[in-house]
Amino acid sequence: MVSRIGEQIEISPVELASQKAKKTRINLASGSPDPSTIPVKEIEETYNEVLEDLGAKALSYPGAGGQEELIEEIEKYLSPLGILDKNDRIVVTSGAQHAMELLGKYFLEGDTIAVENPTFIETFNALKLRSSVVLPIDLDENGIKVDELKELIKVVKISLLYIIPNCHNPAGVNLSETRRKELVELASENDFYIIEDDPYRPIACNLPKPIKYFDKDGRVIYVGSFSKVLAPGLRIGFSVLRGEIAEKISLIEQLDFSTSTINQYVVSRLLKKGLIQSRTEELAKHYSRKMKVLRDSLLDKGFQNFNNPSCGFFLLLNLGVDSWKAFNEAINAGLSFVPAKPFFLRGGETMARLSVAISNEDQIKEGVDILSSIKKKIIQ
Amino acid sequence: MVSRIGEQIEISPVELASQKAKKTRINLASGSPDPSTIPVKEIEETYNEVLEDLGAKALSYPGAGGQEELIEEIEKYLSPLGILDKNDRIVVTSGAQHAMELLGKYFLEGDTIAVENPTFIETFNALKLRSSVVLPIDLDENGIKVDELKELIKVVKISLLYIIPNCHNPAGVNLSETRRKELVELASENDFYIIEDDPYRPIACNLPKPIKYFDKDGRVIYVGSFSKVLAPGLRIGFSVLRGEIAEKISLIEQLDFSTSTINQYVVSRLLKKGLIQSRTEELAKHYSRKMKVLRDSLLDKGFQNFNNPSCGFFLLLNLGVDSWKAFNEAINAGLSFVPAKPFFLRGGETMARLSVAISNEDQIKEGVDILSSIKKKIIQ
Repeated sequence: MVSRIGEQIEISPVELASQKAKKTRINLASGSPDPSTIPVKEIEETYNEVLEDLGAKALSYPGAGGQEELIEEIEKYLSPLGILDKNDRIVVTSGAQHAMELLGKYFLEGDTIAVENPTFIETFNALKLRSSVVLPIDLDENGIKVDELKELIKVVKISLLYIIPNCHNPAGVNLSETRRKELVELASENDFYIIEDDPYRPIACNLPKPIKYFDKDGRVIYVGSFSKVLAPGLRIGFSVLRGEIAEKISLIEQLDFSTSTINQYVVSRLLKKGLIQSRTEELAKHYSRKMKVLRDSLLDKGFQNFNNPSCGFFLLLNLGVDSWKAFNEAINAGLSFVPAKPFFLRGGETMARLSVAISNEDQIKEGVDILSSIKKKIIQ
Repeated sequence: MVSRIGEQIEISPVELASQKAKKTRINLASGSPDPSTIPVKEIEETYNEVLEDLGAKALSYPGAGGQEELIEEIEKYLSPLGILDKNDRIVVTSGAQHAMELLGKYFLEGDTIAVENPTFIETFNALKLRSSVVLPIDLDENGIKVDELKELIKVVKISLLYIIPNCHNPAGVNLSETRRKELVELASENDFYIIEDDPYRPIACNLPKPIKYFDKDGRVIYVGSFSKVLAPGLRIGFSVLRGEIAEKISLIEQLDFSTSTINQYVVSRLLKKGLIQSRTEELAKHYSRKMKVLRDSLLDKGFQNFNNPSCGFFLLLNLGVDSWKAFNEAINAGLSFVPAKPFFLRGGETMARLSVAISNEDQIKEGVDILSSIKKKIIQ
């Protein structure tokens, strides 16, 4: 009467922290893009254009797999990346999270899969709830430890590897190019698929080529999103994958039929105008500046155990004390962050995910001050 | 490596007919609302209002289970129906199809369920692909034959009944009030849930109370949509169900996170303005007029085996010849309809679903002329 998913689903720690964050003054929890960066005016103009040009057509049912006009624009948008093989197709989804759910639904039924340790709990959930065994592979400053993965798959057959190669959530690291090539070889040799989840690329510069760039056998499924570079409330993302799987994913998409037609047209027009493409450099600088403030503030306050993210929203801090305990104290003091234990399948009790997405520089500084006082209070 | 859903998913006959219909002159296939009825101007104005008033907030991530503002408006909208028990909650979804997928995902894992014969293949798919056994219960002019269901559940335990009580798709019938009461009693006595899928209510008049109106035990899950009364391209629908299940469905919704924030605000404002509520009478008349033209044309041409729908888009015609054969001939002659066999779990080989949604009165007449010629051609 109730499925496994129905039994096992639980509230995400990110959602929980976000709910509590609404009541705090300083938000170092949210992974939403900075509201000040959302191009509201351009989006409003584009809604008007689409409705003036297309009328009721823009408000009809969405086609299976995405509107043609948008698929063509995404093709052009992706061409500098060199990831669209002639056998590949694009499937439009309601954001990257929806893509993960569709991919989980297609690929998994009690499978064994591998993920980074830590990984992003919300996207990962769509895979975890359909797998029997999940193997956590540790990260270092160059991303997933491929040697560890190699050893493991000598003894355990996996069907899927889920990976966030750039501006990792929550760890803030980038996967090295060497490891990208190694992963693709491993996937071909050991008959598994790689889901490459890449939502932060459009707000980062100087990144290595996607894993999918090195893929010749159709082993890599690339998942992209316009949520960080444009606006998450439109719910438009996409996947790039082999035609035969794309066909199935499009059919599975009809089970929820959830991707808004008009929003697809709006994103398509914004791509056509070059608005999305032109934002990358400015947004990368914007978040980099805030990340520098966060790192400097942490050093000022004597924190030392944290990484050095070159892009994205997140820094992973080892608080040295239980991070749920610190979280509860922080909420009372007007600060929210995300205790990172749930992102770890192994370890992580003292880790905190700090986000620079929403707060301004002064708020970031004040947030670190609060963290520092809390740590002292807990240690005493 | 591929799940059951991945293995078993296939193209819906409605999608197939819709794709072919794009190339035909006369479309008696589509279940999309008449484009001439979509209030494009009001929707455009409302996008502007929402973005002017709320700015980036309207473009942020959607909350779990739906935006508060929209939930409040749906509560008011539903109050004349008397279906919102104090223990019930509303969950906003990306259209009714998305609600079906979420409900299937929560409730079913190899279960035995019952559905009407015929039923709407697309919504039903989300349930079928997660069930082991599906029991088809025949319809008559008063809807599902409750006596047949009673006999069956004496010997087979079901966990769910899926039902379209009003302006049935594809059968065009309404379920009688007596049977609604009987179904609720049966569900309570035999420990199963009822999914009441009611997308056509907002474009119909003089309907009986929803099944959920008679439900005291929380056995009925009411699924509603704004696709027919407003516009399908916004992808906004909702469910009404007991708080504890609503809570779970909201969490499961985070696995796809697909319901556009701005579109939720737009529908919320349109409800607040009373626009949606004010459209029912006019739309009911609009589609009734077209349905009368269809019935009169069929009678004119000597067709006799069809029902008499009092609302909605669909009429079920017994062509007397194989309906796929007729469909292929029709496509060549510039007419599309949906061969209804796939809607039937038992029988239905000669049945055709004719829709008055998109075509105008002249096109409907011409479509019936073509059908009549095709039938003669096939019989000869």
